[in-house]
Amino acid sequence: MIHSVDTSFTSADGISFILSRTSVRRFTEETVGNDDIELLLRAAMAAPSSMNLQPWHFIVVREEDLKEELRRCLPYAKMLQGGSIGVVVCGDIALYERINRLDKEDNTLYWVQDCSAASENLLLAAHAIGLGAVWTGIYPLESRMAQLRRLLHLPSHILPLNLIVVGHPFHVSSPKDKWDPRKVHYECF
Amino acid sequence: MIHSVDTSFTSADGISFILSRTSVRRFTEETVGNDDIELLLRAAMAAPSSMNLQPWHFIVVREEDLKEELRRCLPYAKMLQGGSIGVVVCGDIALYERINRLDKEDNTLYWVQDCSAASENLLLAAHAIGLGAVWTGIYPLESRMAQLRRLLHLPSHILPLNLIVVGHPFHVSSPKDKWDPRKVHYECF
Repeated sequence: MIHSVDTSFTSADGISFILSRTSVRRFTEETVGNDDIELLLRAAMAAPSSMNLQPWHFIVVREEDLKEELRRCLPYAKMLQGGSIGVVVCGDIALYERINRLDKEDNTLYWVQDCSAASENLLLAAHAIGLGAVWTGIYPLESRMAQLRRLLHLPSHILPLNLIVVGHPFHVSSPKDKWDPRKVHYECF
Repeated sequence: MIHSVDTSFTSADGISFILSRTSVRRFTEETVGNDDIELLLRAAMAAPSSMNLQPWHFIVVREEDLKEELRRCLPYAKMLQGGSIGVVVCGDIALYERINRLDKEDNTLYWVQDCSAASENLLLAAHAIGLGAVWTGIYPLESRMAQLRRLLHLPSHILPLNLIVVGHPFHVSSPKDKWDPRKVHYECF
């Protein structure tokens, strides 16, 4: 049996890394560097995607005016303060047109799953490099999507999934223990 | 500035851990132990969720007969062979009923995002402990959902998102480099 895992950390490290991530909602004034932004987006793009379509786009918001606009139009974007940046994760639904014509069913909604996996990678990558992040919802709420579409000049085939706020954590946040054995079923529900 | 990240591994380790995960589609005969299954599900349940509703359920499929049924009804489940197990990640849409009554918009589809983040954590946890995994799609394809509903006795408020096949990798798989700077935009699309 061959293990494909990196040897630079132990199994326990990998698991505790995942378990120790938590949402961070308050940030220092320190800005997020461009190299760090690239690391976050590289990790996001390493997510799997249906038919390997990689439907994601990432809009990085660093300008103060635009951050203020986002705080105004999204109820949970108040934490986009200080040195934090916003990353709006979007999906390109035009990629599914050809497949849907060939197929008998509508595959378009796979964009939500793929962009969500990319978002989780982005949150974990922030945690890895000592940043903090929080995922705030946009899709499927039409009112929020419409405002983001206007604000970020999104064409009609680019749908905004969420706004991830990333910055340097103001304080240490402890992860919640969400383990619940009642959510585990064997062989059938 | 305080870093909330574990000190047991370096930043580079955390990023390379995420970047080195890849889909594994061929497995040895070695079975996946119960302790490992619990680690995978603990990691999955550490994902963030909208309104902290944690809408996920996990159906672990180990029995040969049921694995064969899954291989028969899902076109991409052929890799559920040898010692590998299946984890069907499901979402409970009944959790949104009260919120949707209070709210003016339909929040139900948040289950897809939350269960996708949990799925990505599960894939990464498998990678951390030397297992391999692959995410195979069920939702939003009605035909696949109907078959899973029957096979796993799912009540109508429990929707199947995907089947994740997990096992001991037959060989080392190299991750694809999916970095694409054209997917990155600053301030607007």
